[in-house]
Amino acid sequence: MNPLVIEFFWDPASPYTWLAATQIEALAARTGATVSWRPFVLGKVFEATGNRAPATVAAKAKHLFKDLGRWAALYGQPLNFPKVFPVNSIAALRMACAAGATGDGGRFALAVMRAYWVDGVDIGQPEALVAAVSAAGFDGAALLAASQQQPVKDELRANTDEAIKRGAFGAPTFFVGSEMFWGNDRLVLLENALTAAAKA
Amino acid sequence: MNPLVIEFFWDPASPYTWLAATQIEALAARTGATVSWRPFVLGKVFEATGNRAPATVAAKAKHLFKDLGRWAALYGQPLNFPKVFPVNSIAALRMACAAGATGDGGRFALAVMRAYWVDGVDIGQPEALVAAVSAAGFDGAALLAASQQQPVKDELRANTDEAIKRGAFGAPTFFVGSEMFWGNDRLVLLENALTAAAKA
Repeated sequence: MNPLVIEFFWDPASPYTWLAATQIEALAARTGATVSWRPFVLGKVFEATGNRAPATVAAKAKHLFKDLGRWAALYGQPLNFPKVFPVNSIAALRMACAAGATGDGGRFALAVMRAYWVDGVDIGQPEALVAAVSAAGFDGAALLAASQQQPVKDELRANTDEAIKRGAFGAPTFFVGSEMFWGNDRLVLLENALTAAAKA
Repeated sequence: MNPLVIEFFWDPASPYTWLAATQIEALAARTGATVSWRPFVLGKVFEATGNRAPATVAAKAKHLFKDLGRWAALYGQPLNFPKVFPVNSIAALRMACAAGATGDGGRFALAVMRAYWVDGVDIGQPEALVAAVSAAGFDGAALLAASQQQPVKDELRANTDEAIKRGAFGAPTFFVGSEMFWGNDRLVLLENALTAAAKA
């Protein structure tokens, strides 16, 4: 049997996506699945669905930092809320598509999210972005150049449109076949489903 | 040391509150805590904070049934989405305050949520509500009469105002002292905090 694939739709602008990203490869390993890292534009998903970022409700925003810190502590992962928030993640997402074409999508995703959510790099600034991913072992300048090609831009748009069409309304969003899971807090349900599928 | 208290703010109108309610006493037992069941009016919390029920975003609403079913399966608990939704839960909440005065708040909460989320009783209809809680062993008629007294109405309003003042914006909301946790999906964080507190 071919291994099940977790399609992981991510945007580095989302803190819960960083949290989930730190867990997803280990979850896949435990359940015999593989991860397909798929960049998409969360802002466009919000626009299309009428959903809103949690921080748009004042009482939620106030609670958000505490909640994020608790998850980070539970996972034993760093998370430092960046000074620049929200951030323009389009350049990073396009570079992620370019990196994905060479099979490095997961490593790139983790590097760019770590740059933003741990090191506080303003990934909306191309120079800072290139420097950060170069420091993580990528050819940042080459990826930036590749990200400006139309097919790469089209891929990011197509990923976003596809996620919306398949029912996504936030991030992170996971698919296993047609089964959708939304949110870092649903990793437990995703794992439960993969474990059940492996037994079946 | 006195046991830690989990203040559990609940409204039977919320399906995630039913799910959490099925788990909270066992969680408290595992961590040496006790549960204080506190009825509050979720609609007023939404009004005060500008938060919205998840079903107000169409793509979320579509996903909601699947998500609820997955949690119910994970917990091994029944959940049947009722025909009448949303429901007017004010009478049920006032009766819960009256039941709480006699120390039966938790048992009443579980009975009324089971009536609505398992048996599909329209708890917005006083006759149906009285019949359902009477079938669960309460004196439904006496609780309904008690619920119409001003001090009981005031208690429900005070609970709601207090929750909003302490930062609540949805349901279920849990407090351990000044620490707030929101959502069935944060039971893992609540348990983590209680376990850490017990060790400290």
